[in-house]
Amino acid sequence: MSSPAVIDLLGVLAYGELVAFERTAADASLAPTLADKAALAEMAAAEFAHYEQLSAHLTSLGSDPIVAMQPFVSALDQFHNTLTPRDWLEGLLKAYVGDGIANDFYREISSHMDSATATLVSEVLSDVGHADFAIERIRDAITQDPKVSGRLALWGRRLMGEMISQATLVAASRPALQELFLRPPEGEVNMTATELTAMVNRLTVGHAKRMDVLGLAS
Amino acid sequence: MSSPAVIDLLGVLAYGELVAFERTAADASLAPTLADKAALAEMAAAEFAHYEQLSAHLTSLGSDPIVAMQPFVSALDQFHNTLTPRDWLEGLLKAYVGDGIANDFYREISSHMDSATATLVSEVLSDVGHADFAIERIRDAITQDPKVSGRLALWGRRLMGEMISQATLVAASRPALQELFLRPPEGEVNMTATELTAMVNRLTVGHAKRMDVLGLAS
Repeated sequence: MSSPAVIDLLGVLAYGELVAFERTAADASLAPTLADKAALAEMAAAEFAHYEQLSAHLTSLGSDPIVAMQPFVSALDQFHNTLTPRDWLEGLLKAYVGDGIANDFYREISSHMDSATATLVSEVLSDVGHADFAIERIRDAITQDPKVSGRLALWGRRLMGEMISQATLVAASRPALQELFLRPPEGEVNMTATELTAMVNRLTVGHAKRMDVLGLAS
Repeated sequence: MSSPAVIDLLGVLAYGELVAFERTAADASLAPTLADKAALAEMAAAEFAHYEQLSAHLTSLGSDPIVAMQPFVSALDQFHNTLTPRDWLEGLLKAYVGDGIANDFYREISSHMDSATATLVSEVLSDVGHADFAIERIRDAITQDPKVSGRLALWGRRLMGEMISQATLVAASRPALQELFLRPPEGEVNMTATELTAMVNRLTVGHAKRMDVLGLAS
């Protein structure tokens, strides 16, 4: 029997991969060249494969993947509907920056779990080539037209703000996840509000580094 | 060295699968339930796997898949942009009826080719479960609200008309494919206009059968 927190984590990750698949496929349809379209479609298929791994693992734990994903549908859909990219570059930045923050966040959570879960999570969070692809295309676009960097920097800030607020809402609505958050690291007495703030700070630092790679203010 | 007609056929099929992947993923985002979404995403991933098979085969023949697909991009994109489903049911009908016509058409063409090509084509045209899924969902919807059948019948007729006209345009723009069309079957002297008309008639009959399965007038 797995802990409710493990099922919650695998459920939110599985739905996240399913949505990532859909969004990457939608970005593929905006691709300026056929080669870019094919490359994005390949990444989308890899994201679907991650979804299948998580789904199979949930089933092997005796949990229905659909039931496990359901509690996270409305929060993730709302996040994505609020932040629909207006064009190809915004889609790429969303994938790079959004997946970056999400992955850092999920790794923080999974570090509190059993090693089998942590290994699977680390595996499905491995980048499918999306980050390098996005970095290269965004840098090229900025070189060609430096004006786009202001708009993209603003978009990056909106993504960061919205993700922090959604993550807080999701965690707050799931007692099992919340408890996990508040569970102190091995050898410590309790996880304080200071620890939580420290985690948000670590996520912010990671975000700033990714924006910096693009030469964008965070 | 493969014939230009083989490269053309594999190119149009590869682009067709890439677009099918994108459209199915877009339909997944319209799915009314999480189970339907997951089922459609799985079909999209299977369509991408077909694309990969075709792409790998083109590469093995010494042909760049991107170059092979390029001539068919604008015709297929135009077809899909003209006929964007307005909702979930129209998306399902388009997949069922559109893939049905396309598959009958490609099978007719591939029957004129070497057996290795014909085998690969038959393999990538194998249904990924899309047809049964669509039939079941559309029948349920008609049972629940018989009024939708008029709208869907009209949509099916538009799809058929547009596909025949696009297929004619594509064939007309590619001398290699055109020649193949006009190449007489083994033992006959030439393929006449009557033969072409007969093929369109066979496609129409196949279409009518599929609409009939749904209880829709064609």
